[in-house]
Amino acid sequence: MMLRNGELISSDIITDRSLLYGDGVFTTIAISNGKPCLFQQHLNRLANDCQRLNIDNFSIENIQSQFFSAIINIETGIARITISRSSGERGYLCNKAEPVIWISVNDWPTHIEQYKQSGINCRICQQPIHPNPSLAGIKHCNRLEQVLARNEWHDDQYQEGLMLDPDGNVIEGTMSNLFLIKDQQLFTPNLAFVGVNGIIRKAIIDIAKRLQIPLLVSSISVQDLLTADALFITNSVISIWRINLLNNQQYDNHPIIKLLENELDKLDLHETKHL
Amino acid sequence: MMLRNGELISSDIITDRSLLYGDGVFTTIAISNGKPCLFQQHLNRLANDCQRLNIDNFSIENIQSQFFSAIINIETGIARITISRSSGERGYLCNKAEPVIWISVNDWPTHIEQYKQSGINCRICQQPIHPNPSLAGIKHCNRLEQVLARNEWHDDQYQEGLMLDPDGNVIEGTMSNLFLIKDQQLFTPNLAFVGVNGIIRKAIIDIAKRLQIPLLVSSISVQDLLTADALFITNSVISIWRINLLNNQQYDNHPIIKLLENELDKLDLHETKHL
Repeated sequence: MMLRNGELISSDIITDRSLLYGDGVFTTIAISNGKPCLFQQHLNRLANDCQRLNIDNFSIENIQSQFFSAIINIETGIARITISRSSGERGYLCNKAEPVIWISVNDWPTHIEQYKQSGINCRICQQPIHPNPSLAGIKHCNRLEQVLARNEWHDDQYQEGLMLDPDGNVIEGTMSNLFLIKDQQLFTPNLAFVGVNGIIRKAIIDIAKRLQIPLLVSSISVQDLLTADALFITNSVISIWRINLLNNQQYDNHPIIKLLENELDKLDLHETKHL
Repeated sequence: MMLRNGELISSDIITDRSLLYGDGVFTTIAISNGKPCLFQQHLNRLANDCQRLNIDNFSIENIQSQFFSAIINIETGIARITISRSSGERGYLCNKAEPVIWISVNDWPTHIEQYKQSGINCRICQQPIHPNPSLAGIKHCNRLEQVLARNEWHDDQYQEGLMLDPDGNVIEGTMSNLFLIKDQQLFTPNLAFVGVNGIIRKAIIDIAKRLQIPLLVSSISVQDLLTADALFITNSVISIWRINLLNNQQYDNHPIIKLLENELDKLDLHETKHL
């Protein structure tokens, strides 16, 4: 018998490997003006993440068609695509290579635009993020560290928390990638050992290259953050939120942030033309 | 719209935090002669694991009553209880503290008794298991490392793979804890930094104490395994499987293994009397 909160549930759902083991990958996509932003990049990352974890036998065309039927009539929202390795078996061994595609669409929260305008307050999380090269870069469903870090505070004093590895290297936010600006240069943490290879992070690295803004992927300490000229975080929903305050350190807005925001807007316009 | 493989699914299921983030804990229980083995120990570990992850507001009595309704008329089988932090929200922040209880019951596989009699062949996995003290000991739903390790082989040449941390310390099997016997002493890896605090592992530590068999929880290298007199693995379904072969090293059965098997059988008899 299979039960969820005491009620019968299908065995296909209760044996989904994402549910059992976090054995899947996902991506979160902004829907704006009825179009998914940077959709091709999201599909590419999903495919790449699946390849890293040996999740195969799925059709990107199939995911794409399910996705567009899920967002039909959605003008603005947040969509998540999860690819779970499979369902139907017990145990870590997976003989049945039939991934399960989960797609959810949620309302667009009003606070996103608000913090884009105002900037945010940030804290350093107690919960470390541990190096794990086999999973580094992948947006997989094993996210307990992020859950523990994000639940260190429940008021709205802070909008994001930054996570450090056990050696004190700053890696990323609980739900975002991090950039710092110092002396007209961009810096973002090295994610070779841990962290999520964010779509907007990648887009900014590409923009910086194209516009010849110096950008270094490197180890970053809290001290580096506190002596930076400006800080900002990125993800596919918020795009860019600049940081006003980290611990007691205040930061100003910066022309490079404005420039990157404009360039990101152009990318989306370019992208949506092709859908 | 919420879809699973293109079909509508309830938002409560698709937003379950175990599915989204592996944000839950679980335990796997052998059902024998219509009774769950070491059931109180499983409930205690679930409660302890939930406390470690700040999953609260659930009733152990409620879990217990759901569990017994799920295993009604089951003579022999494998049951899994998962406690997911909650469902219904987006994002890592969890404001809604209403855990979801998932219970599944599967058939008892015939190979379990077979390998209990014959012993097993074991390999060393390529996939490392990375230290993570905040999660060490907890049987949580972030199990991608175990999934990757267990899927390094798909034939039945090996029945289990052992996982090492990046420093070469042997930690556990993909689905089991590990013990070695040398000079009439028991050794089992230290799980302070990573690993699952197994119910049978704990039971064996208690039995060894009671019977005054020396047992050391310590760092263990592959070299220690290869020079051991005997090796065995444990979990709640298999109880004890002795290892016949690891790499090219052969191991004999050992009187201490037989002794522990008998003592474990007695524990179950004692336990089930109280249900």
